[in-house]
Amino acid sequence: MPASPPHDPTLLAGGAAGSRALGPLVETVLAALAEGAAARCGPLPGGGPDGVARRVADRGTPVLPEQGQGAHDALRELVGVLAEGAADPADPHCAAHLHCPPLAVATAADLAASALNPSMDSWDQAPAASALEERVTAGIGALVHPDGTAPDALVTTGGTESNLLGVLLAREAHGPRVRLVCGAAAHHSVHRAAWLLGLPEPLVVPTPQGVLDPAAVDEALTRLDALECPAPDRPSPAVVVATAGTTDTGAVDPLAALADVVAAHRHRRPVTLHVDAAYGGPLLFSDRHRPRVAGIERADSVTLDLHKLGWQPVAAGLLTVPDRSALAPLGHRADYLNADDDTEAGLPDLLGRSIRTTRRPDILKIAVTLRALGRHGLGALVDAVCATAEEFADLIEAEPRLRLRARPGISTVLFRPHGATDAQVATIRRRLLHEGQAVLGRARVPDPATGRPVLWLKATLLNPHAHSSDLHGLLKLVLDQHDLPADLRPQDPPR
Amino acid sequence: MPASPPHDPTLLAGGAAGSRALGPLVETVLAALAEGAAARCGPLPGGGPDGVARRVADRGTPVLPEQGQGAHDALRELVGVLAEGAADPADPHCAAHLHCPPLAVATAADLAASALNPSMDSWDQAPAASALEERVTAGIGALVHPDGTAPDALVTTGGTESNLLGVLLAREAHGPRVRLVCGAAAHHSVHRAAWLLGLPEPLVVPTPQGVLDPAAVDEALTRLDALECPAPDRPSPAVVVATAGTTDTGAVDPLAALADVVAAHRHRRPVTLHVDAAYGGPLLFSDRHRPRVAGIERADSVTLDLHKLGWQPVAAGLLTVPDRSALAPLGHRADYLNADDDTEAGLPDLLGRSIRTTRRPDILKIAVTLRALGRHGLGALVDAVCATAEEFADLIEAEPRLRLRARPGISTVLFRPHGATDAQVATIRRRLLHEGQAVLGRARVPDPATGRPVLWLKATLLNPHAHSSDLHGLLKLVLDQHDLPADLRPQDPPR
Repeated sequence: MPASPPHDPTLLAGGAAGSRALGPLVETVLAALAEGAAARCGPLPGGGPDGVARRVADRGTPVLPEQGQGAHDALRELVGVLAEGAADPADPHCAAHLHCPPLAVATAADLAASALNPSMDSWDQAPAASALEERVTAGIGALVHPDGTAPDALVTTGGTESNLLGVLLAREAHGPRVRLVCGAAAHHSVHRAAWLLGLPEPLVVPTPQGVLDPAAVDEALTRLDALECPAPDRPSPAVVVATAGTTDTGAVDPLAALADVVAAHRHRRPVTLHVDAAYGGPLLFSDRHRPRVAGIERADSVTLDLHKLGWQPVAAGLLTVPDRSALAPLGHRADYLNADDDTEAGLPDLLGRSIRTTRRPDILKIAVTLRALGRHGLGALVDAVCATAEEFADLIEAEPRLRLRARPGISTVLFRPHGATDAQVATIRRRLLHEGQAVLGRARVPDPATGRPVLWLKATLLNPHAHSSDLHGLLKLVLDQHDLPADLRPQDPPR
Repeated sequence: MPASPPHDPTLLAGGAAGSRALGPLVETVLAALAEGAAARCGPLPGGGPDGVARRVADRGTPVLPEQGQGAHDALRELVGVLAEGAADPADPHCAAHLHCPPLAVATAADLAASALNPSMDSWDQAPAASALEERVTAGIGALVHPDGTAPDALVTTGGTESNLLGVLLAREAHGPRVRLVCGAAAHHSVHRAAWLLGLPEPLVVPTPQGVLDPAAVDEALTRLDALECPAPDRPSPAVVVATAGTTDTGAVDPLAALADVVAAHRHRRPVTLHVDAAYGGPLLFSDRHRPRVAGIERADSVTLDLHKLGWQPVAAGLLTVPDRSALAPLGHRADYLNADDDTEAGLPDLLGRSIRTTRRPDILKIAVTLRALGRHGLGALVDAVCATAEEFADLIEAEPRLRLRARPGISTVLFRPHGATDAQVATIRRRLLHEGQAVLGRARVPDPATGRPVLWLKATLLNPHAHSSDLHGLLKLVLDQHDLPADLRPQDPPR
């Protein structure tokens, strides 16, 4: 009979005894992960949503028993069912989304964040963690804005929060009339940010070439005044949102030219430039690919997501700024966390570094990764997945039954079987999911041949271990679905 | 010479080989945690912010070397410095904030979340994790709203995001004129939510007794119309925000009476009730303490934070609703994540379950904890810390040199040395921090004897392992500071 929880000496993860308590539990977790992966035996479980839900119901019931069943049993059951039912990005056939296979070193570091449980909203909950965050965010800020006055970065839950913060800073700088100007290929979170913050709908600039045209942005900014504020002495404020690596195609907007347009308009109106580089930002690690995001350093704020091309477990978002004074609007007081007399006495004021309050030290895994791999190591990973995407595109071009939409954007490749309808493309993807064979994404973007939007299969290649044989195998899975007899082919799996 | 990163077979945490790659790295982490705790030898490091920053600079430089230094070295250095420089809530003298010592079982489970890295924004990134979340959030919703039509919960980053969501739901239901009505003791995040969402400043009802007076809320709601909208046919919409467990004192507003007031006003105006139970919600686990939050089930939305009284590593926030249809305003479309044809074909639509996009499966550690401890086990932990707070209050009452402000609110105890000034109280706290002896909080709330706000030392007792000797020791540390010779006493540490 185990000790009742308050008297169980292995209850807590922290303190001098915490490591000893964690050891056997972590062993149970690692065993359950290995068994789950072996049982799954592929990139995701077969059987589709209903099949997975049944297995989770079997092993995940009851949710809240009256009496506990003990730590090891609970870990075995629930970690086991999660692992067996995972879409594992470490499998090269799991390549739908900007959903990376996390590094073992970052994952191990993240365990320490959980065990120590620092909370980043006040120094007395996170003495070393807040000092570490200060150093690392300054370093990342300097990577993006090497010529900035005082480069800095905030740690966020991901690109969506980073984009929200970028837009929020623009609202606080320019007032609630500020209008977002973004491309049609901008991430949905840009629109959601405007909605959350009570701003007007973004002005969407069409992107027939997949990227923002600086001339079109110039025109849109000029048009703004006519749109809402005819008084020539009070031109409409704006924030231009560019993208370095779109979700659908990995396209990078011409950042330097867009920075020029924004700079030119600054003589006439309050306008800032936010770059959503959630995907493309880490190209900065690579000597080979860094030039593709030239101009990013001129943005007023930049979204980065190291849980994409940085191979971090979620969450590892950042918002960088060239000068930390730009973050002042986030300043906020709560006597229990940052009273004036405490701040005057030298206790750091951390509350303005997030719109969250309690906050996990996601910086730890990032710091450990930067140190363990170095810039060259991370650059080599970036180079590897970009090369994989090039190779995948080559294979598609060499296969007469498939069409490649365009050469890869970063590590994203769009393709579709020749002659397939949109419905057939969608069904191929869903069948591969249902059968547990592959996780491919989808993107509805223009066909370069016609200019008309059509549905493409999308491979977002983020696995640095993917081999040629994996890529061949992935294409074969698609072709096998496409080549099924007509009565089996374009149908969705039974529900 | 280790393999270059793209060719390192121990690079990734996932897949069949991930467990084997993680094993040795996790051992390094556990060793660094143990060594760090031993080196710290107390609840937090001595030397204050400057001393900690120096040690982090020593071991944390460079942030981003050109060449990596390898995984084990990076983990040893950075986990080591973080552990040595932690304010460890597993030490009973670390008792300032709602900053809990996490459970070993939850911490171990969280490792699996990092290793598998499911992202909760689409089914094909999180098949089993999304199915598990659906079951567990329904179960937690039912715990809070047992008579709800279809109880549910959203997983958040904490009380701040939960409160934001509660207010956002009110804005979407009632429009952007909606006015927040909250008590003076409400959490700062309530005000921040109104600011973020572009809403009017909240109407703050004074709380001289520390809790919201239902009659005062009734009057405030009545006053609203006069304040902003004299037209009797278009009464002002409102959302009343009550608190179950304030940050400063642990006080619980009279929830049932407030629900009555809101219900009565519903005949006249659109008005909803949001309860911020970030602290007090888990009293529901305890047979003894559950009655203290009676009425919570009638709220339209409830904030819970299982990284407080639920002993989870950050983050483990929740927003519960009695009927999931209330969450419809969060619905959102992005073709690559929840296209109509995918949803019609049976792929679950997850995007409306958060204002984040990419999202870590924080539900896993919660699910494992609920199963491992059961309701009784968690209730026993709640009972233990409430009993600890009662004992601590008894000790203060028995000590003639100290004043107890009031009997504990949940597990929070406010006290101060007799005859001390506010500046002396603040300095005692800062000296204990600087010397690495104790982490106590502060609260500026009325002195019951005079009604005037004064500064109190705050102990938030969340450690189920705290013994009487720990409590005695904590009071002795305070008294030793207070009893220092006058020339040493009320000064801040040198900077």
